[in-house]
Amino acid sequence: MRPWTAGVAAEGRRSATLASEEPLAIELDGARVATTMRTPGHDFELAVGFCHGEGLLDGHAVTSVRYCATDAAVTTEFNIVTVSTDGKAPPPTPRLTATTSSCGFCGTDEIDELAERLEPIGGDRLGWEVLAAAPEGLRPGQELFGSTGAVHAAAVIESGGAVTTVREDVGRHNAVDKVVGRLLLDGRLPAEGLGLVVSGRASFELVHKAWAAGFRALVAVSAPTALAAATAERAGMQLAGFARDGALTIYVD
Amino acid sequence: MRPWTAGVAAEGRRSATLASEEPLAIELDGARVATTMRTPGHDFELAVGFCHGEGLLDGHAVTSVRYCATDAAVTTEFNIVTVSTDGKAPPPTPRLTATTSSCGFCGTDEIDELAERLEPIGGDRLGWEVLAAAPEGLRPGQELFGSTGAVHAAAVIESGGAVTTVREDVGRHNAVDKVVGRLLLDGRLPAEGLGLVVSGRASFELVHKAWAAGFRALVAVSAPTALAAATAERAGMQLAGFARDGALTIYVD
Repeated sequence: MRPWTAGVAAEGRRSATLASEEPLAIELDGARVATTMRTPGHDFELAVGFCHGEGLLDGHAVTSVRYCATDAAVTTEFNIVTVSTDGKAPPPTPRLTATTSSCGFCGTDEIDELAERLEPIGGDRLGWEVLAAAPEGLRPGQELFGSTGAVHAAAVIESGGAVTTVREDVGRHNAVDKVVGRLLLDGRLPAEGLGLVVSGRASFELVHKAWAAGFRALVAVSAPTALAAATAERAGMQLAGFARDGALTIYVD
Repeated sequence: MRPWTAGVAAEGRRSATLASEEPLAIELDGARVATTMRTPGHDFELAVGFCHGEGLLDGHAVTSVRYCATDAAVTTEFNIVTVSTDGKAPPPTPRLTATTSSCGFCGTDEIDELAERLEPIGGDRLGWEVLAAAPEGLRPGQELFGSTGAVHAAAVIESGGAVTTVREDVGRHNAVDKVVGRLLLDGRLPAEGLGLVVSGRASFELVHKAWAAGFRALVAVSAPTALAAATAERAGMQLAGFARDGALTIYVD
């Protein structure tokens, strides 16, 4: 494959380097819980963050994370990650069947389901200047985006405003899972007083993940959805969007 | 909730109108096959397009599509759509368990799986001028994006270059499913000689859906991933990215 550009290409157009995308199967105590298309790298964090966000760990400690096999001869085995709680987490139920079983459900039901298992967020608000500065702090860490233009990023806004733990992925949700997984493995959950900044839009799913991790605020470079705002309001989480050039719009404060 | 803007907002920043996002459960002949977060609207097309793309219809005709109940008193029942083939489609297997069952799988396996059930794309190439002009033709149809900034769009590039059947959704994959579903319901599949234009990036999943529908070309406004390019090459489908301002980069021709 030899990419070529037709027409007058605008400056900064990228063409040659493509972002990597590979399937990752996530297993918890031996049971397959998800398969996601992701950008390889920080796979353990992704697997742990996913299990945490979905409530699969149920408060139990992660005792080990490993690839499918320890023999490094077959590279594809690095597309399966096994998270272990030594069997203490409850047996996972596939989300497909678990989410809805009757006629009539809606976004509010999804929020109710989260509110049942997650604590409301509390503590001091983060100042809007800190939130507005976060995308600027995210950018230097977006290495893959710089070369491919095809990946999203997520990162932690520390209480002092520093942006750390930048993670990238073709999937927005995966980038957030990688950040959350890192915090969990470092014993930093719940993320009290911390913010989460994401390079794209804020959907329900991202607010869900931020809530599960206990972030005080979620900042998106692009727009939130209505359900994302309603969920943040219920969580008591600050939600800001269109965070660009030092300004932003605050939907929930 | 009363959004407010902090800092000096750049022109064109949107703040007040939020895109709608609600869960949609898709059923095929009575069996739940997926739950997705989507922007309500064109739900029948989304459900039909999804079933087609996943190969669930197995070549059988869709005999009816309906919401969960015909009584319109409960609005949430519009979050469940049932596609019927009069029981002719094979019983669906949940993707979670069906995709991978052994240690060691990778993106190439996913391509192989598609190549087993999908025909190679053939026919005359679409000219690069037609492909490069598509995003311009897409824009007038992006009504929700104009007001919310939070949704993706997909549309058909007709053989003469006209852009039709613009569909929007918070999920990129849903926007494509809606377009494909429309073509199926209109008896226009396989989409021989037609192109598909999408507002965002081109991931493996989108190439997969375009291939299943038989599109001759896929044009993305942003970047493709490496696996997307490899899949398009295997399909014999043209793939272009960074289609902006009348120029574009062609990855597979």
